[in-house]
Amino acid sequence: MPDSYTEAAGTHSASTLPADSVGVITPEIAHFDTPLSLACGKVLPEYDLVYETYGTLNAERSNAVLICHALSGHHHAAGYHSRDDRKPGWWDAHIGPGKSIDTNHFFVVSLNNLGGCHGSTGPLSHNPETGRQWGPDFPMITVSDWVESQVRLADYLSIERWAAAVGGSLGGMQVLQWSLAYPERIANAVVIAATPRLSAQNIAFNEVARQAIRSDPDFHAGWYGEHDTVPKRGLKLARMVGHITYLSEDAMGSKFGRDLRSNDLNFGFDVEFQVESYLRHQGDTFSTTFDANTYLLMTKALDYFDPAAIYGGDLSRALAPAQCPFLVMSFTSDWRFPPSRSRELVDALIHAGKPVSFASIDSPFGHDAFLLPDERYHAMFSAFMQRAARELNLDTQANKEVTS
Amino acid sequence: MPDSYTEAAGTHSASTLPADSVGVITPEIAHFDTPLSLACGKVLPEYDLVYETYGTLNAERSNAVLICHALSGHHHAAGYHSRDDRKPGWWDAHIGPGKSIDTNHFFVVSLNNLGGCHGSTGPLSHNPETGRQWGPDFPMITVSDWVESQVRLADYLSIERWAAAVGGSLGGMQVLQWSLAYPERIANAVVIAATPRLSAQNIAFNEVARQAIRSDPDFHAGWYGEHDTVPKRGLKLARMVGHITYLSEDAMGSKFGRDLRSNDLNFGFDVEFQVESYLRHQGDTFSTTFDANTYLLMTKALDYFDPAAIYGGDLSRALAPAQCPFLVMSFTSDWRFPPSRSRELVDALIHAGKPVSFASIDSPFGHDAFLLPDERYHAMFSAFMQRAARELNLDTQANKEVTS
Repeated sequence: MPDSYTEAAGTHSASTLPADSVGVITPEIAHFDTPLSLACGKVLPEYDLVYETYGTLNAERSNAVLICHALSGHHHAAGYHSRDDRKPGWWDAHIGPGKSIDTNHFFVVSLNNLGGCHGSTGPLSHNPETGRQWGPDFPMITVSDWVESQVRLADYLSIERWAAAVGGSLGGMQVLQWSLAYPERIANAVVIAATPRLSAQNIAFNEVARQAIRSDPDFHAGWYGEHDTVPKRGLKLARMVGHITYLSEDAMGSKFGRDLRSNDLNFGFDVEFQVESYLRHQGDTFSTTFDANTYLLMTKALDYFDPAAIYGGDLSRALAPAQCPFLVMSFTSDWRFPPSRSRELVDALIHAGKPVSFASIDSPFGHDAFLLPDERYHAMFSAFMQRAARELNLDTQANKEVTS
Repeated sequence: MPDSYTEAAGTHSASTLPADSVGVITPEIAHFDTPLSLACGKVLPEYDLVYETYGTLNAERSNAVLICHALSGHHHAAGYHSRDDRKPGWWDAHIGPGKSIDTNHFFVVSLNNLGGCHGSTGPLSHNPETGRQWGPDFPMITVSDWVESQVRLADYLSIERWAAAVGGSLGGMQVLQWSLAYPERIANAVVIAATPRLSAQNIAFNEVARQAIRSDPDFHAGWYGEHDTVPKRGLKLARMVGHITYLSEDAMGSKFGRDLRSNDLNFGFDVEFQVESYLRHQGDTFSTTFDANTYLLMTKALDYFDPAAIYGGDLSRALAPAQCPFLVMSFTSDWRFPPSRSRELVDALIHAGKPVSFASIDSPFGHDAFLLPDERYHAMFSAFMQRAARELNLDTQANKEVTS
């Protein structure tokens, strides 16, 4: 979700790609004709999902890993779209040969979620029933709707069971939902920097972002596309608020401190402190690249997610259907979804008798840490994935030849 | 600064006022003709300060306590403006007979700061040089400018030395500035839930608030008054963001949790969660009662305050001029200005050899706690003030008679 989608991974300047990159990747599109019934009661008559894959699907189709993205994420998680592409996908630090999700073993599938604005059907798409853009008519999407649409993508790719479903933040919620709704279809679950439900403060920050967008006069009740405008002011503010919650106070302090942009105070409202400059820049960039209706939908999906709600808040009971081993990871300086929120999930999994490994990783980088390279994070993550590969017999060439 | 300015103190319904109230109070106005040179280089030709007083000034004029207000505060700190007034001033919990600042001993002076929007000269006032409202032409005001204007108010009231200067949040910064700029004119300093300088994250939240206001099309570069409009959307957003930072995550959680406004999800963008309803209401109220240009000025005053800056960040050196005893208090769940920020000040005061008492008070109420009644808070606060009264020989009627 954070800036790190565009910034976290290293950049390269030469036309040779890094040796541990998955290389140049071309997104693909899967079209689905069967209507999808949504939690809100509406039906999506048809839809596209755009996705990328990294690595090679084995003959048994048993080595596929699903990547679920966060608030402002998309399908481009690793590699480059061309040799001239300066920045790789948002999770390139963790997907590739020898990386946490090792493409020497795994076939990785990364999609843009339904309702998104990067190629999958969403508010920017054409509504076949009206002939207009979907815009604000696009139905509200929940985490379970996303999982339903991802099940169809698995079927489309003839993947009966994911070797693992993996996600950070809102992506981790989708992984959790997979483990509950389709326990027989995921062999392992990796839930990073996530929470089993938002707190009142989390919802409050989302609500500020929504009000910023919806009160922008250029929003036009969501029909800005038909007014040839974009609610840039609102999107900018939403992103600025978001960014503050993605970075730890310490990370912000050591990155910017009270440094001034020029030597003197200007006693005005132009940028004075570096942190102001950073936030305005992040907000401006986002406001020209992300769709406002999508942002609204994604924040509501976050707010709604609460698998324990129908069990009177008893998360252990909600977790009863889960069958697979879990890896839960959090970061010490993440104040958006702090380690205590991951612990809620871990405690409930233990109480429900489920196998779970948990690591709270020391990091100064706040919520953004889940996107960044880090030695201990990588060690925990790759150890879990390697064990998964061994248990699924993915790592011996011999085995592959015997089976195929 | 928080909602507690209007909500924290108890309400009364009968026409009899509470026994421990300072009673019905009438604000007064002091006019100053001597131009005031400001830190920004501009000069304010003349100005008014509106203020209230509680208690009785003794003959020696030695029992006066100055109250400095925070971001969205004003002069009405205690008592009622009429017998029909349902809510008392914003710090009524701590000012009155028998309260932390005991009006049986002290004569309390509470003003609205320069640049404010509650009666003191500010952006809503008439600019004598142009004949227009000041609006965005009102010069940038710093914490030291406020102290200069408060010195003149002290002179106007013939108060040579304050028995104490007292303030929370931005108010605490003014108290600190008093102790450095006019050490001989304050006998005691009480700095509550404050910080010697904002962090990058603090500045970031202020910047979001400013961008929200300044990007509102109704802002008109600050000349909304001449356009017969108010940047309500921006003010609302600014206040919503502010509120999240005034409340602790736990306080928000226990106040609202994930409670829904009605029984079912509406799968839309109307209010669903109680916390959304609360924030929208707070924002709406504020947007019709507070001036946008004033809000901008106040947030910049917060950002600029940094007495250690001219000493290369060495706060101990900056504190060298201070002479009086300090009481510094913070609240455990305050994440806007947490106890660690107060400790910075306390450590620097100790390092500089100044007398200081410090209490980090257990409270679930976040930054707002400084406005609320609390047994331990009151005990610390009133013990310090009683000691001050004894040392200034304020508490014996005999003494008063002898001296006068």
